[in-house]
Amino acid sequence: MAVTEMTDTLDTVKTAPESGYTTSDGPPPNYFRIDFLLRLLLLVSAVISLVVLVTSKESEVIAVLPQPFGAIIRDAKFNYSPAFIYLVVALGVASLYSIKTMIFSCAVMSRPAPSAKILFGLIIFDILMAAIMASAVGTAGGIGYLGLKGNSHTNWVKFCDIYGKFCRHVAASIILSLFASIILVLLVVLSAYSLYKRSN
Amino acid sequence: MAVTEMTDTLDTVKTAPESGYTTSDGPPPNYFRIDFLLRLLLLVSAVISLVVLVTSKESEVIAVLPQPFGAIIRDAKFNYSPAFIYLVVALGVASLYSIKTMIFSCAVMSRPAPSAKILFGLIIFDILMAAIMASAVGTAGGIGYLGLKGNSHTNWVKFCDIYGKFCRHVAASIILSLFASIILVLLVVLSAYSLYKRSN
Repeated sequence: MAVTEMTDTLDTVKTAPESGYTTSDGPPPNYFRIDFLLRLLLLVSAVISLVVLVTSKESEVIAVLPQPFGAIIRDAKFNYSPAFIYLVVALGVASLYSIKTMIFSCAVMSRPAPSAKILFGLIIFDILMAAIMASAVGTAGGIGYLGLKGNSHTNWVKFCDIYGKFCRHVAASIILSLFASIILVLLVVLSAYSLYKRSN
Repeated sequence: MAVTEMTDTLDTVKTAPESGYTTSDGPPPNYFRIDFLLRLLLLVSAVISLVVLVTSKESEVIAVLPQPFGAIIRDAKFNYSPAFIYLVVALGVASLYSIKTMIFSCAVMSRPAPSAKILFGLIIFDILMAAIMASAVGTAGGIGYLGLKGNSHTNWVKFCDIYGKFCRHVAASIILSLFASIILVLLVVLSAYSLYKRSN
């Protein structure tokens, strides 16, 4: 009998101006177009950052005493430091995550009003991803800064004066990763705003 | 089952007073009691972490060649490393932030249904604080790990075998800061859940 009838009535009641929504302009807004664009930006920045970091290898001839015989070739590679390995892993996870959620975002985009459950779920995953990325940027940033400035108290010498190309790659990668972290924070804010608009 | 459920919802919507809520069980839930407790935990962990980090100073007699004349006293202090200074600043900001929002949370606790705007505002500030704390934990963790393990590729020697007390303090502080970051993430999830419950 009346299942469809009832659903229809329910829909009518729900979309009627005097019902649940205090705003009169129909269903709650769907911000999944902006969501999709932000996730695309996240993917692009994470992938570029990953490539820049992985291709940062640099070989330099280091003079060693006694001269003129002492000279060795030493590399600088991202995987010599656990901090940069952590950033590479975080960027890889963020890239895969952005692809997965982009597909999801694309599927939800056309719906008139995606369920609040979806938005809540996205907030949880986005904030976890944002926290991981922020900590990875912090870790790599700390080691990168040490490479640039050194630390006289612990006798940790800087290496950026020798490995210029490596440091430029690392710096570019960290800036792009920071950008990716900011996008993840914005994604949480966007989903929260969408929920906020629905609860008005 | 579905039909009765639907009828119930329909009845509720039909008979609900013109309050704007579509659910039958009165005003949306108020989770500010949990919010307050989480902020109290945040304050406690941030303050303890701050005190542990600031009191980490250790002086050690270091033998220097040529022996037996060479012996100097060298300190290990948190402010010798920009990473630990960053963590101290982040913890200080988090402590002040938790006090401010605790007062706010306390004021809102008694209201039957705090406005969605308040929850959205809290999400924005909480996620910014969470990102700052996560990056600070990452930075300090990276430097702490370097102190523990060293890095043979860059000739950065570990110092935790000499400055044991300093390293224990730093490790305890980092673990507590990580705990504080997790609480901040939980606070965002709680506010988002509250918004989600309201939008149902």
